[in-house]
Amino acid sequence: MDLKKTRQKAEIPVPQVLQKELRHVLKPASTSLQKEFPHTYSTPEVRFIEGARERKAQRVGVLFSGGPAAGGHNVIAGLHEGLPKGSILVGFLMGSAGLIENKSRVLSSEEIAAYRNLGGFDQIGTGRTKIETPEQFASSLQTVLHHQLDGLVVIGGDDSNTNAALLADYFIAHNCSTIVVGVPKTIDGDLKNQEIEQSFGFDTACKMYANTIGSLMSDLLSSKKLYFFVKLMGRSASHVTLECALQTHPNLALIAEEIREKKQTLTAVVDQIVDMIVKRASQGKNYGILLIPEGIIEFLHGFDPSTLEKEMKLERDPHGNIQVSKIETERFLIQQVEMALKKRGDYKGTFSPQPIFLGYEARSTYPSLFDSAYCYALGRTAALLVEAGITGVMSVVQWLDRPVAEWQIGGIPLVSMIHHETRKGILKPVIAKALVDLKGAPFRAFETLRAQWIDKDDYRNPGPIQLFGPDEIAWSRTKTLSLSS
Amino acid sequence: MDLKKTRQKAEIPVPQVLQKELRHVLKPASTSLQKEFPHTYSTPEVRFIEGARERKAQRVGVLFSGGPAAGGHNVIAGLHEGLPKGSILVGFLMGSAGLIENKSRVLSSEEIAAYRNLGGFDQIGTGRTKIETPEQFASSLQTVLHHQLDGLVVIGGDDSNTNAALLADYFIAHNCSTIVVGVPKTIDGDLKNQEIEQSFGFDTACKMYANTIGSLMSDLLSSKKLYFFVKLMGRSASHVTLECALQTHPNLALIAEEIREKKQTLTAVVDQIVDMIVKRASQGKNYGILLIPEGIIEFLHGFDPSTLEKEMKLERDPHGNIQVSKIETERFLIQQVEMALKKRGDYKGTFSPQPIFLGYEARSTYPSLFDSAYCYALGRTAALLVEAGITGVMSVVQWLDRPVAEWQIGGIPLVSMIHHETRKGILKPVIAKALVDLKGAPFRAFETLRAQWIDKDDYRNPGPIQLFGPDEIAWSRTKTLSLSS
Repeated sequence: MDLKKTRQKAEIPVPQVLQKELRHVLKPASTSLQKEFPHTYSTPEVRFIEGARERKAQRVGVLFSGGPAAGGHNVIAGLHEGLPKGSILVGFLMGSAGLIENKSRVLSSEEIAAYRNLGGFDQIGTGRTKIETPEQFASSLQTVLHHQLDGLVVIGGDDSNTNAALLADYFIAHNCSTIVVGVPKTIDGDLKNQEIEQSFGFDTACKMYANTIGSLMSDLLSSKKLYFFVKLMGRSASHVTLECALQTHPNLALIAEEIREKKQTLTAVVDQIVDMIVKRASQGKNYGILLIPEGIIEFLHGFDPSTLEKEMKLERDPHGNIQVSKIETERFLIQQVEMALKKRGDYKGTFSPQPIFLGYEARSTYPSLFDSAYCYALGRTAALLVEAGITGVMSVVQWLDRPVAEWQIGGIPLVSMIHHETRKGILKPVIAKALVDLKGAPFRAFETLRAQWIDKDDYRNPGPIQLFGPDEIAWSRTKTLSLSS
Repeated sequence: MDLKKTRQKAEIPVPQVLQKELRHVLKPASTSLQKEFPHTYSTPEVRFIEGARERKAQRVGVLFSGGPAAGGHNVIAGLHEGLPKGSILVGFLMGSAGLIENKSRVLSSEEIAAYRNLGGFDQIGTGRTKIETPEQFASSLQTVLHHQLDGLVVIGGDDSNTNAALLADYFIAHNCSTIVVGVPKTIDGDLKNQEIEQSFGFDTACKMYANTIGSLMSDLLSSKKLYFFVKLMGRSASHVTLECALQTHPNLALIAEEIREKKQTLTAVVDQIVDMIVKRASQGKNYGILLIPEGIIEFLHGFDPSTLEKEMKLERDPHGNIQVSKIETERFLIQQVEMALKKRGDYKGTFSPQPIFLGYEARSTYPSLFDSAYCYALGRTAALLVEAGITGVMSVVQWLDRPVAEWQIGGIPLVSMIHHETRKGILKPVIAKALVDLKGAPFRAFETLRAQWIDKDDYRNPGPIQLFGPDEIAWSRTKTLSLSS
């Protein structure tokens, strides 16, 4: 039996609370968003306690939205298995587009079993379409009415859950009783707050990247001649880079939030890298490894991309704007460092840089045991929230640093996460991206350690994700989670 | 206990034969290389049978040569533990340079234990220095005399083992009794013949790459919008690409040996890719994945790099030659495909290519259980060969597709692998690189399957390397090995 089949059949541990008969209780809550969310601004918080409840079959829709994250299929499995007997689960295809265009398929037990514990969002696909125009909202309403849905579960990141909040309000405004439940997904780890301890997919992605980074480190120490410039996914927040740094101890890791806070310029960042290279060279070390979040360029103080237009062959978009996101950050930094090194008269070492991009592979790989169980619990909780009939809430599973048995569940109002942000010049109500907190425990731990990483090679390799073996290894948690708890 | 500590302490299974008391027997052999190897052209083959032998402590040197490959540290562990009590093991630092310059360290049991089952060659480092000049041979001789070595174990690929063969002959010619033993290392898998079933590191590297490729495939099916152009290590031979193709079933995999055999031009290869893209687009599939061996450009029929000099910003080396190896193959092919697609009037699909390079990370990652045990057995066998006192032989472990207990061991003459090849214009005796055999079982299996991979998405993900769990998973063998056996 190969790994795929073994994982498909593997039992998923379930929190003790989910093994009991539960009924929901509400904790009143409110926000000042009465104008933007007239029907849901005072959505209550949902908790579950032991008790009998009446059960009736539900009709539920589910969709993925945005980039894949490991564990998504287990949200579907948990949802399916959490719903009362006779319920129907409709999967919308290729993200919100499937909802808008009513492209869907009823998901059978057999089909769900075939994707159990497997990576990717490929069972029903995903997409980046957002529900934005009045027509798109109207079409979505038509779709849920067509399917007579009791509930719609949106598995996505900050933008997708903002969409879920808007849909919840829109449905009530249009006398539609379909309730909307969000599920916190993103490998970037930036959908996070007091209630959401970690988004799903972050654990798996960071572990896969950290294994690659740790392996590159062993390679460095074997040959001692390259500088790896490792770009990691994470356009806005540097959680992935921070977590990987804590797991592997690179010589340098750039954190976008710190660069912004300290108003560091491109020159300052390049100088920091060059200083490290020069210091290491003075000890005979002409090798090293740096971690770079992909979106860092936009955080540089006073950075003017037009100065790079020719140099980096940057394209302009149809509006004539330079597309900073097209810059390959790791290659750009290598080029800048090479130029800066030439200007250092005192530098005698060699510099053989190698750009590395760690990205897509970790979004859809086999979920870690943690993400498998976490996602299944998120799905089961989403099913309970649908049955509870409370719209505009996010499925949450908490106490994630403890054993699965002790995990707690609940639903928190999506509106409680909404703040106002200027998007394309317009002030909009959106779920805030959680950036790295420079006063938080993970960053502080990094800050304490990093000085010695510059020239002491304190490299670590956590190894490949293990789906069997000792709990300490197979069930390890991210440093970000452990340190924050 | 984390993975590193767990692996350091993990028991390594040993072939049954190595648990017995053994004595060596010789099988006479000869070659026509009397001129090039006057003292070793008729090195015998070495086998071991049960029997008592006299044991005396040995002084042995060991070095890594060339790129790292997972498992190397276990060769050292096996060698150390296979030698008689009181033996001394000297590690030469950073490859053959350590031998030439006499940079070394006596390796203690404690130190060896700390690297047990870990990836990389970082215990003593490696390098690409070859022993070529008379001065380098003389220095190497001085070093082994200085250390009074009974044996020198060279862990390396084809070139390094050619060096080992030359050293063995040179030592005898200079009345030096140090015997030389080679160990077959290379992730490229091109040090292979009837006796060497697979070089160490190939298993681990292919498994790590295949997990990344399989994960990219899940990502493709989730979002359905990218074309991954995955470049894989392997400058001359395409074993890695072939093995990864057999494990994952990409839409297309280029095999350098086939391109050469069929005299395919750049245009032909690009057309093949474009045909696939057009065919898939006609089915609504604007996504896909291709595997490309890094050295493929040099195999293209009638390819003139000077036509690309400006386009690809190619540098010339000090001799004025264009450095084809500096071309980033995956990016070059994307560029060529984009140009060719524009010329296809009938093409209406989108094309969003994403270059991916899988390389360094798999050379030094944690060895698979297979490579851990294989390397340990290679080291133990090398120790037996040193004790046997037969110089110019390669440590071999055979029947690798069977359970470890059944593995067979022996020593084969390095000269038996030597042929003549023109290098830099001079005919030289070297160990032949084993290219992909287009009539061999692995390629034939690939040939049978690949037509359906083009438009049927038969993607597979073997998953991350498992160091615990069911034997079928944790102890799986490469397809190349299974099919060849």
